[in-house]
Amino acid sequence: MRHDHIITAKQLSREDIEAVLDRAAEFDADPGAALDRHPGKLLALAFYEPSTRTKMSFETAIKRLGGDVIDMGPVEYSSVKKGESLADTVRVIEGYADAIALRHPMEGSATMASQFVDVPLLNAGDGAGQHPTQTLLDLYTIREQAGLDDITIGIMGDLKYGRTVHSLAHALTNFDTRQHFISPESLKLPRNVRYDLHEEGAQVREHDSLDEILPELDVLYVTRIQRERFPDENEYQKVAGQFTIDVETLESADDDLTIMHPLPRVDEIDPAIDDLDNATYFEQAHNGVPVRMAILDMLL
Amino acid sequence: MRHDHIITAKQLSREDIEAVLDRAAEFDADPGAALDRHPGKLLALAFYEPSTRTKMSFETAIKRLGGDVIDMGPVEYSSVKKGESLADTVRVIEGYADAIALRHPMEGSATMASQFVDVPLLNAGDGAGQHPTQTLLDLYTIREQAGLDDITIGIMGDLKYGRTVHSLAHALTNFDTRQHFISPESLKLPRNVRYDLHEEGAQVREHDSLDEILPELDVLYVTRIQRERFPDENEYQKVAGQFTIDVETLESADDDLTIMHPLPRVDEIDPAIDDLDNATYFEQAHNGVPVRMAILDMLL
Amino acid sequence: MRHDHIITAKQLSREDIEAVLDRAAEFDADPGAALDRHPGKLLALAFYEPSTRTKMSFETAIKRLGGDVIDMGPVEYSSVKKGESLADTVRVIEGYADAIALRHPMEGSATMASQFVDVPLLNAGDGAGQHPTQTLLDLYTIREQAGLDDITIGIMGDLKYGRTVHSLAHALTNFDTRQHFISPESLKLPRNVRYDLHEEGAQVREHDSLDEILPELDVLYVTRIQRERFPDENEYQKVAGQFTIDVETLESADDDLTIMHPLPRVDEIDPAIDDLDNATYFEQAHNGVPVRMAILDMLL
Repeated sequence: MRHDHIITAKQLSREDIEAVLDRAAEFDADPGAALDRHPGKLLALAFYEPSTRTKMSFETAIKRLGGDVIDMGPVEYSSVKKGESLADTVRVIEGYADAIALRHPMEGSATMASQFVDVPLLNAGDGAGQHPTQTLLDLYTIREQAGLDDITIGIMGDLKYGRTVHSLAHALTNFDTRQHFISPESLKLPRNVRYDLHEEGAQVREHDSLDEILPELDVLYVTRIQRERFPDENEYQKVAGQFTIDVETLESADDDLTIMHPLPRVDEIDPAIDDLDNATYFEQAHNGVPVRMAILDMLL
Repeated sequence: MRHDHIITAKQLSREDIEAVLDRAAEFDADPGAALDRHPGKLLALAFYEPSTRTKMSFETAIKRLGGDVIDMGPVEYSSVKKGESLADTVRVIEGYADAIALRHPMEGSATMASQFVDVPLLNAGDGAGQHPTQTLLDLYTIREQAGLDDITIGIMGDLKYGRTVHSLAHALTNFDTRQHFISPESLKLPRNVRYDLHEEGAQVREHDSLDEILPELDVLYVTRIQRERFPDENEYQKVAGQFTIDVETLESADDDLTIMHPLPRVDEIDPAIDDLDNATYFEQAHNGVPVRMAILDMLL
Repeated sequence: MRHDHIITAKQLSREDIEAVLDRAAEFDADPGAALDRHPGKLLALAFYEPSTRTKMSFETAIKRLGGDVIDMGPVEYSSVKKGESLADTVRVIEGYADAIALRHPMEGSATMASQFVDVPLLNAGDGAGQHPTQTLLDLYTIREQAGLDDITIGIMGDLKYGRTVHSLAHALTNFDTRQHFISPESLKLPRNVRYDLHEEGAQVREHDSLDEILPELDVLYVTRIQRERFPDENEYQKVAGQFTIDVETLESADDDLTIMHPLPRVDEIDPAIDDLDNATYFEQAHNGVPVRMAILDMLL
């Protein structure tokens, strides 16, 4: 990669993406063999929001490379509480670490922060904005399961607020994929995202039910519909059940359908599905390690 | 050990226990010599409840073996807050780590969680249930101080709710020990625990005062009586003072009496006792490191 | 150093200080070259108060030396919540670690704690008391920028409550420095600190405005004036603006003026100053790493 900071998946070309996924595949093949890659390198974790899997998999990735983390810890116990600006905090932290992974609730924060530091800054999620390492692990998972070209993917759930979805949809325009978006009317893709996808020449269709498109899908990417997005409980109840899946739902699906989910799930995917070969969401989460190893390896 | 998960001390035979304690003794003799045992191995810490000594000693143990931890951090800052189930969380985490140490407030949680993962799961305390690594370090301490056979041990304090006590008492039935239980009437051993001990052929006696049995003891294991167990303050005041010890209490004790406590203590043991050779509770806490090193060494 | 514990900067002679700063300069010259200094050594972090830079730079320092940390974590999640005394907690922790860094809100806590442990204890700030590693990194920064002898330093802001200031002022009496203290009347140096400085033969002058002394200064050390120190907002507004600096303020300053701040800042220093060569506060924060490496290296 030619990039010093990883802020958005949009900055990555098809070649960039493939370079990361190829490197990830090498690490994935022998995860214990990379301990001598970056001995003593320190990755600072600056997480202004709760996170389990992103934080733990970044930590695992750098440690599998022979490095270590220094963790700012919960914001409540940091100098952020004393009123320090993000620009000041990252400038202090860059003196301690060889790279910084930043999660922050404010859209655009990673871009802003990156302008103040010389060490590589990795956006680990900036509010409703971008989450590029999640996108790369999603792409890795899709490639492993179904390939990235000539596939049909369905993305279902909250398409309005889900940053994961917007980022993935955009990245997929680098490949020959047919994208189907399935959501309740009130949680459709934002107009600007749809426009953006069309500009990139994406093949995009929208649906208000999974039934009509499920048989055609190679990959179904499920996301959660958050109750709090609905003004009243009744409206939520009306739609929620149509965007969850169970074993019965899958009867019309292809046997090889790959089911993904960024996790955590609540009840979008019935646990009975966990035992099927189609269920790929835990493997998807695990792929966060080789993919983040690849990214760190290229930047350090 | 033939066990992939360490869920309860009850799963451990006398041979298992002795194998752990022997290995622990080796590590204890030269704690700095084990750095090349498990380089790069990662232990995930999933602590759903506060803990100082268990968490820090697990962390110390894996690091003394050349490995490292990845820490889920406080539950408040994890995806548990977003409603993720324990089964999902451990399945995600097993993709990052070579073993998992789990503390959870719900009895039975470790057994449940262990059914979902392939990496070794170590129960670091499941509510009122089991805490097997605490039991093993208690046994190690007793063996170092007094031997495990042909000893008389008194266990005092809250015998009704203390998981530490139940687990230790059961484990001691593997050895030739005489067990005396000293508590207020309202905090006696639960009937099922007593029954269980009798089934195992334990020599058990119960007392409502330390005085009558103290002179016979080789080991006195003190636990805290929690004020909140009593419906009113008066009742607490009536009994509490009888189950605390100070220098005067020890006048009738054997000079070689070993005093233990799982810590933290509040006022069960007068600080003046800390300076006596009998006081073994800090050493007991420190023994958590070689014992957990031994367990991890056998599982990794 | 001949000291097993680092409790206060007052315990350090000019020779001690110079030995630390010289060692720090060596590490600073090649921060990646020290990984083989202390492999496997463990530093326990016992932080009873929030901290970003002190905690992260201790963590960075020990890791750059090839060691690692074990972190007690936020007090809310530790056994401190169960009523454990500081003396008990540090006696437990010393069994896990090769050294302990302690931050505690109570003045004198580090001295007390150090009496209970055999491993080196480093005071990382005890309330309104001492913070010796901060003082050493301040001295390191001053020496790098202006030298420690024959300089004129101004210390501005909250001189009444700022432990950083008292500790630095005292340490500077080991060198040939002229000290000027600039503050509002209500936040002047406490009488006992001033007395103490005079006893040490310090050349000290006090000012209620920066203007009169700024042109003479080689170093200006700015600290924050906390709003909550003032009984009413009006009084705060009256004085606050006079103890903040911006580019205009600096017109009468020497071109080589070194501007320091212990951070975090709120609005004492205008961000426009960050781009000037005078601005040394981020470098000052970064110096925490080589200085703490030096201290740890000497103690381990």
